[in-house]
Amino acid sequence: MLQVNAYAAPSATEDLVPTRIDRREVGEHDVLISIKFSGICHSDIHTVRGEWGPQQYPLVPGHEIAGIVTEVGSSVTRHAVGDRVGVGCMVNSCRECVHCMAGEEQYCLRGNIGTYGATDVDGTITQGGYATTVVVNEDFVVNIPAALDLDVAAPLLCAGITTYSPLRHWGAGPGKKVAVVGLGGLGHMAVKIAHAMGAEVTVLSRTLKKQEDGLKLGAVNYFATENPETFEVLAGSFDLIVNTVSAGIDISAFLQLLTLDGTLVNVGAPAEPLPVNVFSLIMGRRSFAGSMIGGIRETQEMLDFCAEHRIAAEVEVIAAEDINKAYERVLASDVHYRFVIDAATLA
Amino acid sequence: MLQVNAYAAPSATEDLVPTRIDRREVGEHDVLISIKFSGICHSDIHTVRGEWGPQQYPLVPGHEIAGIVTEVGSSVTRHAVGDRVGVGCMVNSCRECVHCMAGEEQYCLRGNIGTYGATDVDGTITQGGYATTVVVNEDFVVNIPAALDLDVAAPLLCAGITTYSPLRHWGAGPGKKVAVVGLGGLGHMAVKIAHAMGAEVTVLSRTLKKQEDGLKLGAVNYFATENPETFEVLAGSFDLIVNTVSAGIDISAFLQLLTLDGTLVNVGAPAEPLPVNVFSLIMGRRSFAGSMIGGIRETQEMLDFCAEHRIAAEVEVIAAEDINKAYERVLASDVHYRFVIDAATLA
Repeated sequence: MLQVNAYAAPSATEDLVPTRIDRREVGEHDVLISIKFSGICHSDIHTVRGEWGPQQYPLVPGHEIAGIVTEVGSSVTRHAVGDRVGVGCMVNSCRECVHCMAGEEQYCLRGNIGTYGATDVDGTITQGGYATTVVVNEDFVVNIPAALDLDVAAPLLCAGITTYSPLRHWGAGPGKKVAVVGLGGLGHMAVKIAHAMGAEVTVLSRTLKKQEDGLKLGAVNYFATENPETFEVLAGSFDLIVNTVSAGIDISAFLQLLTLDGTLVNVGAPAEPLPVNVFSLIMGRRSFAGSMIGGIRETQEMLDFCAEHRIAAEVEVIAAEDINKAYERVLASDVHYRFVIDAATLA
Repeated sequence: MLQVNAYAAPSATEDLVPTRIDRREVGEHDVLISIKFSGICHSDIHTVRGEWGPQQYPLVPGHEIAGIVTEVGSSVTRHAVGDRVGVGCMVNSCRECVHCMAGEEQYCLRGNIGTYGATDVDGTITQGGYATTVVVNEDFVVNIPAALDLDVAAPLLCAGITTYSPLRHWGAGPGKKVAVVGLGGLGHMAVKIAHAMGAEVTVLSRTLKKQEDGLKLGAVNYFATENPETFEVLAGSFDLIVNTVSAGIDISAFLQLLTLDGTLVNVGAPAEPLPVNVFSLIMGRRSFAGSMIGGIRETQEMLDFCAEHRIAAEVEVIAAEDINKAYERVLASDVHYRFVIDAATLA
């Protein structure tokens, strides 16, 4: 066992505190990663607070991990010491089901093994990236291209792939009109990626507060959804809407903004069901869909795409001792646009 | 003006009664159709009773029309006297918008002109097929192949195309598992058509009451949805689910029956919004979609397909004087599987 520094939630109701956790010895197919940066995802907060189901504590969150390989197992072929690498939301899957075989490990029929709070193959509970070091099977470790700095690359491992995957799947590209609902951690990546793919991007945000940012990030239009006129002006406009807001929104109103055969895809999941007016689907053969992160191969593709297009996350790098403050700011939507923990402050 | 016999609703709350209505003179591009059979669609009942919005009365419903051309306008080229023809849910559209140009007149951006209860180009209110005669622009009249009898062909003009179109659009065919929710007028056509397309068809009905029928119609499996085990056994099974039930059902439970990238398409629209658990979409990149009838070109394709595969509706032919009784039986789901009015009884 390796003992490493980390920040953990002692319970669902307490602030995160510095602690030491165990990492398994580097196995035959494992790599040991010295973590440099770890992003803070809204879902970290939901999870550690038990809002998505009960957890085992202490729990170290973090599934946007960027670092350097410092040791490899005897059979490792995909990575070498010194490699710049990333780990996202999964650290393993069954590898045998039809979805794993197709490279869609996120939809593993037996359930993928999450980077934290999940039961690992050895029966232990996985612990995430708010730590100095992590040991991960090489197949769930991706390469971070040299063109991407590690701090701005870290959020790509969740926010990047979560938006890249549906944009690719539903064909965002030249000639396509894409709307992004919400300009937070996921939303700002969706705007950058959709723009880089060649789509015409519109941001739909509650207010016009972040309009200047949105246009800088690559949007050509920016509308306030608190203004009812927005829904009249934009009716039937979009081929694809990516909804990054996990709070409940009036989904039927947004569905009306789709053109014939358009799709509104949720990448966040509100705890409560969303009421859908079926007429808004029928009157245009529209679809309301969902999408969850992306497969490992696609995550690598996304990183290469971001490197090629020189895009990455907009981040505020923080020290570990500021994690709890950062959580409050995430909940208040007061972040431009992702907090990233500098793992050096954990040492 | 032509005066013709018809059955009309005098108001939202009264039974339909025999009456005489006006049909316009046969225009340059019109055909005059001697109606032989007219199907009774559940939506006729919703509409005449004002459940889908206020109507102008008296109103003659009926949008599953099969008959013989008895007169054609001077410029008509698509039809000739003596042709066996059908008219479905639309009798015109703008013909200029992008959807009309693409042959998707049902999604006309200015709204297609419904066969009854809609405002026609001349400002009159359209009157439907519960009549002896109808005058329709030739472009909205389709040919009924010789292999199809007119009584069993009539319901294809709505129930047929409403199910054919989404089955084609979402790729029902060999190697695909398709479930049909509800075995009524639409459901029984969905089963026949999906089976003829080569898909493996399962019926999901509230009870097993119609199981024998369902298997005869082409289903290989039949499950009762009142049994909670059905939802465990069939989890993640279907590529496509066609929901023909317009009452509210637990849509999130049905979504869980889809495999990765599966689609549940509603062809009926409940008056109340359906609550959708977004997790059931995200956990498999599933889609909840809607579809509305089909275009004119596709309606002809559907009729040719049905003729080629020797399939049509299962009908109970009734006299016009039994329309009100038939309505009650439709509402009680007591019909195998479509009532069709013999227009000779209106003469």
